[in-house]
Amino acid sequence: MEILNQQSWGTLLLACVIGLLIYSMEVDGEPVATYLGQRNQFLKSEIGEGVGAKLVLNEKEKRVDDILLAAKRKEVAQGFSETFPPTVNFLTGKPLVEKSAVFDIIKRMPKGGILHIHEISIADPWWVVQTITYLPHLYYCVSDDYFSSLRFKFAGTVPQEKPVACKTEWALVSESRAALGSSYFDQLLYHNLTMVTDQPDEVYPNTTMSWLRFQQALLSLTDLYFSVTSFDLFVKQSLLQMIQDNVQYVEIRTVLFPLQELDGTIHPPEYTLQQYIRIAEEFKQQYPNDFAGLKIISSSIRHPVNRPLIKAQVQLAMDLRKKYPNYFAGYDLVAQEDGGGPLVDYLNELLYPLEVGSDLPFFFHAGETNWQGTFVDDNLIDAVLLNTTRIGHGYAINKHPAVLEVVRSRGIAIELNPISNQVLHLVHDLRNHIGASLIAEDYPVVVSSDDPAAWGSLPLSHDYYMAFMAMSRETTGLTLLKQLALNTFKYSAMTASEKEAANDLWQAKWNIFLDETLAKYELTETMPKEEL
Amino acid sequence: MEILNQQSWGTLLLACVIGLLIYSMEVDGEPVATYLGQRNQFLKSEIGEGVGAKLVLNEKEKRVDDILLAAKRKEVAQGFSETFPPTVNFLTGKPLVEKSAVFDIIKRMPKGGILHIHEISIADPWWVVQTITYLPHLYYCVSDDYFSSLRFKFAGTVPQEKPVACKTEWALVSESRAALGSSYFDQLLYHNLTMVTDQPDEVYPNTTMSWLRFQQALLSLTDLYFSVTSFDLFVKQSLLQMIQDNVQYVEIRTVLFPLQELDGTIHPPEYTLQQYIRIAEEFKQQYPNDFAGLKIISSSIRHPVNRPLIKAQVQLAMDLRKKYPNYFAGYDLVAQEDGGGPLVDYLNELLYPLEVGSDLPFFFHAGETNWQGTFVDDNLIDAVLLNTTRIGHGYAINKHPAVLEVVRSRGIAIELNPISNQVLHLVHDLRNHIGASLIAEDYPVVVSSDDPAAWGSLPLSHDYYMAFMAMSRETTGLTLLKQLALNTFKYSAMTASEKEAANDLWQAKWNIFLDETLAKYELTETMPKEEL
Repeated sequence: MEILNQQSWGTLLLACVIGLLIYSMEVDGEPVATYLGQRNQFLKSEIGEGVGAKLVLNEKEKRVDDILLAAKRKEVAQGFSETFPPTVNFLTGKPLVEKSAVFDIIKRMPKGGILHIHEISIADPWWVVQTITYLPHLYYCVSDDYFSSLRFKFAGTVPQEKPVACKTEWALVSESRAALGSSYFDQLLYHNLTMVTDQPDEVYPNTTMSWLRFQQALLSLTDLYFSVTSFDLFVKQSLLQMIQDNVQYVEIRTVLFPLQELDGTIHPPEYTLQQYIRIAEEFKQQYPNDFAGLKIISSSIRHPVNRPLIKAQVQLAMDLRKKYPNYFAGYDLVAQEDGGGPLVDYLNELLYPLEVGSDLPFFFHAGETNWQGTFVDDNLIDAVLLNTTRIGHGYAINKHPAVLEVVRSRGIAIELNPISNQVLHLVHDLRNHIGASLIAEDYPVVVSSDDPAAWGSLPLSHDYYMAFMAMSRETTGLTLLKQLALNTFKYSAMTASEKEAANDLWQAKWNIFLDETLAKYELTETMPKEEL
Repeated sequence: MEILNQQSWGTLLLACVIGLLIYSMEVDGEPVATYLGQRNQFLKSEIGEGVGAKLVLNEKEKRVDDILLAAKRKEVAQGFSETFPPTVNFLTGKPLVEKSAVFDIIKRMPKGGILHIHEISIADPWWVVQTITYLPHLYYCVSDDYFSSLRFKFAGTVPQEKPVACKTEWALVSESRAALGSSYFDQLLYHNLTMVTDQPDEVYPNTTMSWLRFQQALLSLTDLYFSVTSFDLFVKQSLLQMIQDNVQYVEIRTVLFPLQELDGTIHPPEYTLQQYIRIAEEFKQQYPNDFAGLKIISSSIRHPVNRPLIKAQVQLAMDLRKKYPNYFAGYDLVAQEDGGGPLVDYLNELLYPLEVGSDLPFFFHAGETNWQGTFVDDNLIDAVLLNTTRIGHGYAINKHPAVLEVVRSRGIAIELNPISNQVLHLVHDLRNHIGASLIAEDYPVVVSSDDPAAWGSLPLSHDYYMAFMAMSRETTGLTLLKQLALNTFKYSAMTASEKEAANDLWQAKWNIFLDETLAKYELTETMPKEEL
């Protein structure tokens, strides 16, 4: 070694480094090339198993796919160094989503139908504040719950009955607004009708607190919704915002509460259904190219104290199904499953339709929980044994292999609601949402939004963004989005001819979407793709 | 109606309520009974698919199972109203775990082997502070990283080389301890060697920050471990704590760094391996009924800058495998996968053993990420295509159906490390850990602990608790725990005869565990089961 001087050592070192570099670039050697061939095959077969993988895109769709994938790749790459929006609570992450080019494309895309959404949480809560709470004859009181939530009532004169669970007497909204100033008062109303906050982790540190606030917001909205005074306005606005978000069809879950007149007269639930039908038909006339229709799923509250009511509500649902088969799709039980009232507690009631030969379809919420093998998530077993048409949420389904088998073999669609599950504490980082594996393995799924108004999301776009960005490969593009849209018709309660009509309406909008996306984003000589 | 007076109305109401109650109890009517029969069948078939479901417990095991399930049911029920320990970061949730009767039983249970653990993070860090850092000739400096972590070096005299990435000069630990007071100084050392903190959400708000602190702790431990001065003590203590935690066998992943003498002389990596072998053999002599042996998996750092080293390390692994087949199990690449250096970047190196006909087994880390379809989680594909024997973590595997198929058909065990994945931000609520679905579907899995010292957990018990409480049905008991223990031998790198010997050793301890559990917990006339 001593024969080498310092310079020679340097030369030797340089030679070594170059040698290593050359060696390291030799990745196209024989075994490596063979390996890479096998790897491509493997990857292809795996990707081939996912939702939409079998769709063949036409030339125009392929060009849109290129644009979409360029944007997705860029945003995923950013996610390695900056905040990836699906990984933070939507209540704080929403502005990040809205900067996304992927989101912009998804917003413009016709997304098919919403198959899991609750009646009161479709219309933008700020619109509710600005319009519904400005209607005359609206009273309110302050509830004694932890969040001092508000209860409302439309009434011709001060309501006679004492406010339930309120620590104040009834007061007129218009008078308090005048006294406190509309700016302050309307903000207060807005926060009362939603879970929106800048500090979700502090305000809702756990499932219990998030559900508490959520339920209070829903109670307030329910008060505002089921009144003859507000109902038409509320429903029309809900449908309008839906088509503005490029959604063509909806199956609304509703408690079908009676509508109340200002003088206290109440109409039967059937009247509420009739109003939905009337409004939907008028809306269809008004927007024949945008709106393919609406169906109703009636929902009982699953709380144990409601048990005596369930049988009557099931019977009502059977009647309504018979009388309004084109509009009344079926029956469900709703409310936080962790709180009790599992399906197995209502067997007499839920087996009754079968016993008497009714064709009432079920659309059960089931498995909206992180628990495993408890009375809560075993709802999934009862849902499929009771022959549910779809499953609402199904978040615990990956822990139930036998349920997964039934779901696949019978084509029972799982209604995924990503943002709802995040805000209500089932999952923090949406990349951990079970939708990822369900989509990878082509289970029957639809993406929905549950209660978008409660957290300030659009009727469907934000949830599609989450499913697309957090629950599919970086390399999966338009095939997934298109199939998700098609699935909403496929797994809907529509008849074959209704599906065909909805598909035609959607296809026309799809073609426009492709052209508009190309016009806005396609690579031109003056605008490189990096501008996405 | 007017013929009914107020009293009559009351009577009618009471009659209605009683009628409803009777009606509501009529759950054993014909259709309900038939349904419940079907439901039981369904549940039985689903449960029959899980890990351990096919084990038949003997009479004594059944009695222990009863005790275990009573405790589990009680703790799950508490979880509905109080904090369920697996749902909070282990750094704050550890004291909750340690109140659990289930945990007490799991601690006493012989758990088989640990198949995924890193050499430096087995021994209790407080022992490291109290023993290793009290050895003479230990120098330290303060690093310039965000957390001002410490670097260490055993040396006969002040180290000549300038401290790498340190903002201070080398100083003697003994002198600083004397100057600052041992109580303060030792606490400082402890926090430097671990991620332990009361406020994990504030200190480590995201994956990047938790990995940063984690890596710094590992660097400090590495400095303290790979010295002739400390190595024997360190390894022996690691094995001792392992058997104290009722673990019988271990496969240690190690970087096999050279051991350094106080005068700066360094031994080759083979010497390090030889020391492991010698210490393990001595330990086996000392604890013949508790310790079934140790094997070594050498691990290269996957960072791209290390690439030129990988080939040499693979070749070394091939040599060591040939020379020490009973002790040297195979090869792995380690470090945060999100940071780069995916397996596909090292194809020349990793295909080399196959090319030259070496039998070097791989034990790859793969899929320790929340990303999907990126260079990171596609490591899972390369792991199985490169014929890995097991998969470390595999957290993203539920997004890779083709990999899942290979894993099942080839019996490639997935090494689950629940607490590691929680502390390092892959998943917050451990009920969302992919282990739940893997266990429900009887995929080949073992439960392991990765770097228990870094977060202050026992070598294996805390992780078994998490898998048991967060990733199985409320009604799943001893069959799962027993199968998890048996799996650690089944999927180990031991030969058939070694497995037999380990099983015999384990079985003897298992029998003692059953007797002790019955003695401590079984229902007697003076102690009702509720005392659990």
